[in-house]
Parts: sequence; structure tokens; C-alpha cells
Amino acid sequence: PTHWVLTLSCPDRPGIVHAVTGVLAAHDGNITESQQFGSPTSGRFFLRVQVASGADRAELESALAPVAEQFDMTWSLDVVGRAVPTVIMVSTAAHCLNDLLFRQRSGALPIDVVAVVGNHEALRPLAEFYGVPFHHVPVTTATKADAEARLLGIVEESGAELVVLARYMQILSDELCTALSGRVINIHHSFLPSFKGARPYHQAHDRGVKLIGATSHYVTGDLDEGPIIEQEVERVDHTRHPSDLVGIGQDVEARTLARAVRWHAEHRVLLDGKRTVVFR
Amino acid sequence: PTHWVLTLSCPDRPGIVHAVTGVLAAHDGNITESQQFGSPTSGRFFLRVQVASGADRAELESALAPVAEQFDMTWSLDVVGRAVPTVIMVSTAAHCLNDLLFRQRSGALPIDVVAVVGNHEALRPLAEFYGVPFHHVPVTTATKADAEARLLGIVEESGAELVVLARYMQILSDELCTALSGRVINIHHSFLPSFKGARPYHQAHDRGVKLIGATSHYVTGDLDEGPIIEQEVERVDHTRHPSDLVGIGQDVEARTLARAVRWHAEHRVLLDGKRTVVFR
Amino acid sequence: PTHWVLTLSCPDRPGIVHAVTGVLAAHDGNITESQQFGSPTSGRFFLRVQVASGADRAELESALAPVAEQFDMTWSLDVVGRAVPTVIMVSTAAHCLNDLLFRQRSGALPIDVVAVVGNHEALRPLAEFYGVPFHHVPVTTATKADAEARLLGIVEESGAELVVLARYMQILSDELCTALSGRVINIHHSFLPSFKGARPYHQAHDRGVKLIGATSHYVTGDLDEGPIIEQEVERVDHTRHPSDLVGIGQDVEARTLARAVRWHAEHRVLLDGKRTVVFR
Amino acid sequence: PTHWVLTLSCPDRPGIVHAVTGVLAAHDGNITESQQFGSPTSGRFFLRVQVASGADRAELESALAPVAEQFDMTWSLDVVGRAVPTVIMVSTAAHCLNDLLFRQRSGALPIDVVAVVGNHEALRPLAEFYGVPFHHVPVTTATKADAEARLLGIVEESGAELVVLARYMQILSDELCTALSGRVINIHHSFLPSFKGARPYHQAHDRGVKLIGATSHYVTGDLDEGPIIEQEVERVDHTRHPSDLVGIGQDVEARTLARAVRWHAEHRVLLDGKRTVVFR
Repeated sequence: PTHWVLTLSCPDRPGIVHAVTGVLAAHDGNITESQQFGSPTSGRFFLRVQVASGADRAELESALAPVAEQFDMTWSLDVVGRAVPTVIMVSTAAHCLNDLLFRQRSGALPIDVVAVVGNHEALRPLAEFYGVPFHHVPVTTATKADAEARLLGIVEESGAELVVLARYMQILSDELCTALSGRVINIHHSFLPSFKGARPYHQAHDRGVKLIGATSHYVTGDLDEGPIIEQEVERVDHTRHPSDLVGIGQDVEARTLARAVRWHAEHRVLLDGKRTVVFR
Repeated sequence: PTHWVLTLSCPDRPGIVHAVTGVLAAHDGNITESQQFGSPTSGRFFLRVQVASGADRAELESALAPVAEQFDMTWSLDVVGRAVPTVIMVSTAAHCLNDLLFRQRSGALPIDVVAVVGNHEALRPLAEFYGVPFHHVPVTTATKADAEARLLGIVEESGAELVVLARYMQILSDELCTALSGRVINIHHSFLPSFKGARPYHQAHDRGVKLIGATSHYVTGDLDEGPIIEQEVERVDHTRHPSDLVGIGQDVEARTLARAVRWHAEHRVLLDGKRTVVFR
Repeated sequence: PTHWVLTLSCPDRPGIVHAVTGVLAAHDGNITESQQFGSPTSGRFFLRVQVASGADRAELESALAPVAEQFDMTWSLDVVGRAVPTVIMVSTAAHCLNDLLFRQRSGALPIDVVAVVGNHEALRPLAEFYGVPFHHVPVTTATKADAEARLLGIVEESGAELVVLARYMQILSDELCTALSGRVINIHHSFLPSFKGARPYHQAHDRGVKLIGATSHYVTGDLDEGPIIEQEVERVDHTRHPSDLVGIGQDVEARTLARAVRWHAEHRVLLDGKRTVVFR
Repeated sequence: PTHWVLTLSCPDRPGIVHAVTGVLAAHDGNITESQQFGSPTSGRFFLRVQVASGADRAELESALAPVAEQFDMTWSLDVVGRAVPTVIMVSTAAHCLNDLLFRQRSGALPIDVVAVVGNHEALRPLAEFYGVPFHHVPVTTATKADAEARLLGIVEESGAELVVLARYMQILSDELCTALSGRVINIHHSFLPSFKGARPYHQAHDRGVKLIGATSHYVTGDLDEGPIIEQEVERVDHTRHPSDLVGIGQDVEARTLARAVRWHAEHRVLLDGKRTVVFR
């Protein structure tokens, strides 16, 4: 049997789970994991089910389609553990890229990094050590549109379904955000919504906070306002310079981003307006 | 409609969720929360469902009974938020009792403390401030059997369904453990299985650990070995004396015990052999 | 011998520690704890020393005075563990008041709560259970000046050195902030600078953050901008309503405030401009 | 001026700090960081001072020697930030090695990895990517003595001052432990003293603990009993298989080991019998 993961969302009303599990039971499906959530704020219902079944994709899809239509579902079906083709974008900071590539090789992250794109050359050796093609796509104000077109080309040619901004120090245009909506994950080096914008660790130091953090979120045209997937903090004290905070923060950033990417790749993150439902 | 919580466990096999949700759908049940788990080690399946339905208890029970029999289920049905009648046992340390009584009054803990039993008089004023009867049941080696009989009497007469050992410094007999099996929650002042037995903070200090903790568990005849419900730790360093650790630990103990009691009272804790399934 | 705690700050330059420890050694002082920090941003040096010495206050003060003058020090000398006279101000939420009073009675907090002031009557019984006088000082826009005058009177008559706003839901006037500068500690129910202002848990819910927190800070005329003493967070997920966040947050608030009050009362918090140095 | 770090321990008595700071002041030393601790259990005093001074090593050492003799000090003097020559020993698990090498290259870890020694070949490519010589030293019961002699040879020839066991799955002989006493740091994949010995994650799963952890400690002849430098935990729940715990644990292990190595290399860890003093 194949191990399937089904995710769906729809307006909440009685009978959804019974209808879906009925289809699965009719295909000798053995549910191995199931999580659901009815959002009182949006009125939507969210479901993620892992099910082992001898049925193939066509059988399941055609059996689920009428139910999906009846309940007005947005839904997707994937094989559990399938490595999601992914492009990672970087500038010069290596910590997030190193962490993602190492986890992928260790089998801890169900992604297949098909390309690394950098606006600097600095991280080419690291990408190539892991056998991943590195594309140098420099960006200036004058060349931004061309650079983004080239990026979009790389995404399309490589079949990437996910783009990870691993401390990529450029702001994507609204057009690119729209073209890749729901498929771009960023790591912001602050505990959003605190310290939006540039040099967040310096802002944090000035304010004298006792915890610093990182936020991984989907990228939207609204800078630093996209739906939050994961956040993490670390304790600091008065002895830490801004440069110390940068170093301490890098661990938090790498960990936070890796979790967000894993949950996305495992279809554990569903969008509920500007918020996320995360079935950990 | 009434808001019901149904918990069950049974040998794992396909169709359980579909069967149960079918019964609930047939009674116009609107599922507000649902969690499930198939234990690969024990082969058992666990389910907790909150469902709003106009059906009364008799209707639901008679509809669920055949399904329960078919799948060989252990199950229970309760009203969400019903305050569980609870006896709290104490010695002289006030922090856990104070925390539980305060949370109950605040509405943060769905228990109804029907009695506090102390083997010392020290905590009578605190119990009485919260309007809870206090029973002084001293224990010596000679009187232990009588004291336990009296305790069991208090539990039975008060209709208590749960007994919480809130730093009660006496070991219960095997007979009492058996009589109250699955209904007694203890807080142990170490991160079990480290530092079993007496004076765990002194043991922790001698060993030079960098984190101290607390463990809340069901009480069994096998001392400090009952199924763990919740654990928590706190960072310490070389500057802390054993007496400091006691003070730091009290916060952790109170928090850990309160969580375990809340989860138990909300029917979120199910037993899987010597382990627990906690549907947080 | 008496156990003294000396705190000081001054412009940083070589020889400070040697000069101070010279005075202490000359009075047979045995240093039991010592922490220091040179702030690279402000250029100031901070020192906290605990020292056991047979010398009395007059002897130590007159010996330290020339050194203090030489290095242009701001300094204070106190007896370790002296209970700091404290006024606690409340509205209707009991969790912080209960926590502070319980810790004081347990000997875990070196404060002496000389009065509780409430703009509602709700918490009178709790204060009186702990034997603390309760003053009902209602506040309306019309009576605010009078109410603050009365508060200041209570502080002065009771000899209070510290005022703790334990979820007191009124904003102090600039005049009062100035009069009590450096002596008023507040607990704000968000992880500042996120979610300043009203209803922070609702703001946090809307933004979909994955951690909520609390911030204890000195009160200044600049609302929610005073120097931060301590912050703490707790993990939440999409299932939590704003009302759940309020409940989860109360634990974090009580813990965070208790730590800030203890550190202040133990002379562990020194001001470095808008930031704090905390010698934990 | 050179930035020196001085660490010392001696029997506790008045005047130590004054004497030491006197020597430093006499060499125009500007103290940038200073921490001290008097251990009530052992009666020993511990000091770590960072000081910027124009004096050279010979001057400082000859000025400190008489003070050291007077107070019966064990002491050492080093340049702040000097990279400590280090040998890392591995088997097949890459996560700790990858973490240490990446941090070294990033400048976040003041060590100079002069050799990686593996009892398998698996991690040769990773070592060589970072430009570090890899030595394959297989170990069997028959060849253990020879293998340890070869290891000791590598340590001596490379001038290594520190040996890090980065998930090296062999037990060192008593002789080797003695020869390298205080210079070997291990990472144990449990929250010691829980789950000593083999397969700790499986033990943890069987016991149903709610937090798993890792412990970094100095290696002594007494297995899993050496002085603890750092510990860390991570929350888990009933859904995690032993194999999940292994994966979750690897992050904790890498982080815990990196902190212990950094603190050791920065001379922040001093031995107080079977416990450590860690001046973080």
C-alpha cells in the first residue's frame, strides 16, 4: 500500500470527517495520523490525514472529488515523505543554507534542493559540496527585473515547488510574490512583529530586550507581514553586544527556518487568512 | 446542545473513526475538537472527540454501545468542562495547594476541590480561605492503615473522582494504590527517572546538573515508576545551593502538577500501558 | 558580621574594583558574591558586591565616600535580605497579587507588602487573608489627580520604597511617574515592543504569533517604553482563542513580575540609560 | 595592549580579589569581564578575569606568581580568543562534527581543529571539505590498545590541547582518560543521570518521558559520571517513535556540545571536584 497525505480546508459544517473517512474506509485506508481544526474566527475547517491504502492516485482522486465538491473543499493529495523540489536563495550568510543542506542529506528534511541561487558567489563551494547546482544571480536596482525573471526561470525549469529565502538580503517584487504565492518561505531575524525592517538585532539591543528571536513566515507583498509559520526565542542579557546577538540569533534562525520548511514539506501548514494552521 | 467529550481506546484497525463519527453525525453532532493516535508499540488506538449535540447521555450511550462492543473499546463520555470532584492531599509545603486552589477559583482548572487532607495542620487556613473543608489525618507507622482507611472514606463520602498528592510526603500502600488506580496524581520533585527517592534536589546538586525538574505521574504501587503525565525543567547553575534548588523547583512543581491535573480533568490523558497519551 | 550589598555605577576606567575591594578588605570584608559590567555603549561601569563584614553602616559609608567621590559613583548600601517596603496596586485580576503575596509569605521574595491599593474592591479578601491593609482608591477621569495624590500619600506614610503595578489597569500621570522614578515596576501582558497598548492578546491572536509573552519594566512617562527588567514567553498554537491566550499569559505574567520584583528588591537591577543591567 | 584571560582557583579567604586586581592595576590592566564564585561545599574560590594590558606574558606571570603562591592558587593565563588546538573524534554520525566545523569556520568557536579521527571512514569527506586532516583509526577489542596509542600520538604530534568526542561510539580506557584528564569533552545523548548506558532514546521512549535531553561532560574513567558542563532538553510527546527521538535529539546534542566546547575554549569552565563552575 501507498502512504498518502490528504490536506483540505472548507467551510465548517457537520459531517466532513465522516464523509472523508468514509471514502478512505472504502479504499481499505488505514489512518495513521489525523489532525483537524475548526477556526472560530474564519469559520473554516482544516484537516490533514495520513492514510495507508492500496488505492492509486486516480482512484483516490476520483472518489474524493464528489466529497470535495459537496463541501466546497480546497484539497491536495501527496505521497508521505516525497521530497519537495526546492530552490534555496542566499546572499553571504551560510548558517541557514548549511543547516538545510545538512538536514536534507541526513534524511531529516523531505526536500530535494534542486538549486541554490545567490546574489553573491560566497556560498558556491558549500552548495557544490552537497552536489547542488549554484546559480549566481546578482541584483542591482537596474537589473532587478531581469534577475527576478531569471529566478523565476530557474524555479520553473527545475520544477521547484518551494522557494526558501535563507537569509537572502533582497526584497522580492510584488509581481514575484504573487507569482509564487504560498510557495516562498522566509526567515526574519527578529521576533515579529517586533523590530521589523533592517538591523533588527541592533534595534533589539537598543531596546534592551531580554529575549531575541526569529520568525519564519510565508512571503507576501506586504513586507514582514506574511503569515507566521514558526517562531523561536533565546535568552540574552545586558552583556551582549549587537554583534553577539547576531551570532546567538543565527542558531535560532537556522532552527526556526528548518522547522518551517519541514512542516511545509510535510503538508502540515495550511493557510487560514493571514494566520497559519500548523498540524505538528 | 450539550458539549460532550468522548474518549476511547481499542485495538487499532481500519474503520474506527468512520464508525464513531457516523454515530455522532447521526445525532447532529458538530465536532469541535478531535485527536487520535495509533500506538505502534502497543497496537492500540486512542481517540478523544469533543462534540456539540442535542442528544442526551442515554441516547449517545445507547448509540455508541454497539460500536464500542464491535471494536472492543474502553470508553467514557462526559460533559465538557464538568468540574471533577477532587481531594487534595498535603503535608506542610503550601505552593502546590495554593496554586491548585487559586486556579480552581479563577476558572482555569475544571476541578471541584471537595476536601483537603493533611497529615499536618499547617495548611488548614489556606484551605479554609478558599472555603474547602480541611481534614487532619496524621500518619504514623502504627496508624497508617487506619489513616488510609479514613482517607478512602473521605474520598468515597465526598464523591471524589480524583486524588492529587500536592507534595504529600507519605507513601501510599499498595492496597490504596490499587483501590484508586488511575485516579491518583503525584508531583515528584525531580526529572524522573533521575533522582528517585528522597531529597532529590540534594542529589541533583551533588551531581552538578544544569537543569532541575519536576514530574507529574499517576501513582502505582511501584514507587516513582507510574506513568508520566508531564515534566518540566528549569535552568540552574553552580551558584545555587540545594536550598535554592528547592525554591526554584517549587515553581516548576506547581506548574507541572497544575498542567497534569488540568489535562486529566479534561479527559486528555489516556493510559497506554506504562506510558500516557496526552491529547493537549 | 553583617551581610552587606553594595551597588554602584560610574564612568568606566581602570582601578575601580581594586579601590572598592581595598576598602572592603580593610574592614575584614569577605566577598560572597560579586558581579560587574562595563557597558561599551554608555561607557559606564556597574558593580554589585555582597560582603560580610563586622563594620557598621557608618564605618563603611565613611570609608567608601572618598572612593565614590574619586570615581564619581552613584552608589547604595543595604543589608542583604532586608525586606523592601512595597505597595502593590491592583484592579480586578488576582493572579499577580496572589503570586506576590504567596511568595512573600514563603520567604521567597524579600519584600514587605505594607499596603495593597485597588481601584476596585475585588481583591480586598485576598489582601486581608495575608494580613495586608487594603485601600480602595477608585479612579475616574475627574478624580484621577485626587486618586494619585492619595496613592502618593499611602506610599509616603507607609514608607514604601517600591510600587508594583500588578495588572493595575490605569495609566499613571507623568507627575506620578516622575515622583516615583525608578521605584515603580509594571507587568505588561505582551512581549514588548510587540503589541503595545490595549488588548495585546487579541493583537497577538490576530497576527498569528506562535509565542506569547510578558514584559516587566520600570514605569516612565513614556508608556510601554520604560527600561525592561525581565521577559518571558510561552508557546501557543492556532487552536488558542484570544481568551485562552489570556489564561496562558497569566502564568507568564505572574512569573515574570515576581522575578523582576525579586531582582529589584535584591538590588540586582541597575539602570544604564533606557536599558537595565541585571546581575542575576 | 593584549587582551588576557586569567583563571584561577584556590582555598577561599578574604583578600584574593584585591590582591589579584592590584597586580592587574599595577600593569595598567583594564578589566573587561570578571566573574567569581566561592563554593560553600568545597570551600574553594574561583575567578575568571579578562583584562586588557600592555604587559607581556613574562611580566604578568612573574607579577602574579607571588600572589598565586601566597593564596595556593591553581591558575592559567591565556590570550582571549586564541584558537585552542583540538582533535575531534567521530564514528558515523555527522551532526556534531558538521556543527563544530561550521561554527569554527564562521568564527563562532575559538578552536582550531587540527585533526578528525574516525573509527569509520564515513566522515572523511566532511572533514576534508573543511580542510581538516582525517585519520582512520579502526578499533576492535584486539586492537584497542594500539588504536589508543595511535590516538594519543595524533594528539601529541598535532599539539592538541582538547579532544572532543563528537558521538564517538567507543569507550576510552582508564589509561587514556587519565592521560588526557580534564581535556576530553563528550556528548551523551540523554539527560544524565537518566538513561545512562546504551540506547538512551529507546530507554526514554520506554519510560514515556515528556522531555529528552543531552549532556556534555568531561570524560573520566567513571563512565557517564564525569563533571557536567552543559545540559539541554527538548519537549516530545507520545507520538514520537524511538527513531524520532534520535532525530530530535541530534539537534539538542549538537547545540549542547558546541556550547560546552566554546565555554571550555574560552576558559569559562573550572573544575570544583565532581562539579563544574561555568562562568557564562
